[in-house]
Amino acid sequence: MTKIKNYLLGYEDMYIMQDNEMFNFSLDSVLLPNFVTLNKKIDKVMDIGCGNAPIPLILSTLTSAKIYGVEIQEKAYELAKESVEINNLTNNIEIINADINEFYKNIESDSFDVITCNPPYFKVNENSNFNISEYKTIARHEIMLDLERLFKIAKKLLKNNGNIAIVHRPERLSDIILEMKKNNIEPKRIQFVHPKKNADANILLIEGTKNGKPGIKILPPLFSHNEDGEYTDEIKKYFEKR
Amino acid sequence: MTKIKNYLLGYEDMYIMQDNEMFNFSLDSVLLPNFVTLNKKIDKVMDIGCGNAPIPLILSTLTSAKIYGVEIQEKAYELAKESVEINNLTNNIEIINADINEFYKNIESDSFDVITCNPPYFKVNENSNFNISEYKTIARHEIMLDLERLFKIAKKLLKNNGNIAIVHRPERLSDIILEMKKNNIEPKRIQFVHPKKNADANILLIEGTKNGKPGIKILPPLFSHNEDGEYTDEIKKYFEKR
Repeated sequence: MTKIKNYLLGYEDMYIMQDNEMFNFSLDSVLLPNFVTLNKKIDKVMDIGCGNAPIPLILSTLTSAKIYGVEIQEKAYELAKESVEINNLTNNIEIINADINEFYKNIESDSFDVITCNPPYFKVNENSNFNISEYKTIARHEIMLDLERLFKIAKKLLKNNGNIAIVHRPERLSDIILEMKKNNIEPKRIQFVHPKKNADANILLIEGTKNGKPGIKILPPLFSHNEDGEYTDEIKKYFEKR
Repeated sequence: MTKIKNYLLGYEDMYIMQDNEMFNFSLDSVLLPNFVTLNKKIDKVMDIGCGNAPIPLILSTLTSAKIYGVEIQEKAYELAKESVEINNLTNNIEIINADINEFYKNIESDSFDVITCNPPYFKVNENSNFNISEYKTIARHEIMLDLERLFKIAKKLLKNNGNIAIVHRPERLSDIILEMKKNNIEPKRIQFVHPKKNADANILLIEGTKNGKPGIKILPPLFSHNEDGEYTDEIKKYFEKR
């Protein structure tokens, strides 16, 4: 493992600790914190499965709420912790090394305003020890955290009218809506990201509200790449130094 | 009632009988037949709640399957029948004046390849006798046909792996997916139509397959209007004479 201190993409004064053996960047991690609803009243946010903490770091620029990142893998947890420290964000972000499936049982009910999650399906590359077959097993069976458990956890932890926002694959839209509804989380906002014009969506952003009223908004779509393969301006704006 | 013979938008040799007291054109009726999957093997298609038959007429240009249009309102049924006759399509399209909620009970199970429907929610303007309050009642309560009954009917009438495609409001996405799944209809293809760039979607096109495998595709979005309020080229192409 070679630990590297990098600039967090798009931020002039923000660093992120990375590991060349781990998955280091994904558009998902940038899109989700920019998608989730963050109003001024919120005071507690949890990012489930935070990895090396890109989502908590970006969230810290968008809200003054206290952000908790929970990460099961020790290596990623260490990087996340270091990332928080080098940015002097220890008052804003707390990283916890725990399995959320167990950890949540000890957390008070109705105590979080917002939950974010970029679920395991997209993150199996983080562990380079998986061979192709294990990779597929993890991806298909969502061993560490599946949608059913995720929304059960959210149902307990979220305050009434609190929001959970996740980034996932569009193929799973039906499952996500079903699992949300099972747990009294009403799907409220959806945004699809298409890799380019005239291509099917490859990223789904979805937010649900605990005990929310029925009715979904489908936001304007995002297109991630131009015909020439470059990021579009609407994506590039997330990477502009600020 | 003033009966008018008009060109069917976008078709050089196709007419449609209209009534100045009824709702005469909607983008929905053009989008749906162009969205639904029509392969060469299909031989029976049903359009539920066909009105004056815009969807069957357009379908007849896209498939050689026999098309059945079912319409509960007698006035609309008469216009639909006349539309079929003046276009010499009596061999291709059959219009039936019936309440689908009763009529389907007498139809053989597993006998249709494709069902299309532009449900009542969008069509209450067809009857100008409704006052605002009745209009709202009809819209909210889906008195003539609701999603629950629609997909129950589809479950019976569709062949194994047959498709149902509907056009609806994006707000209802969760309900539609839930009712489809309840009836073993797997949501497979979705397309959203946005009134313009940077606006939330206002039209949902969704297709499900009876006993289909899980997994949804989100097709490239359509934008119906340019910034100047004109139809976009991708919408205009449906109205080009052919």
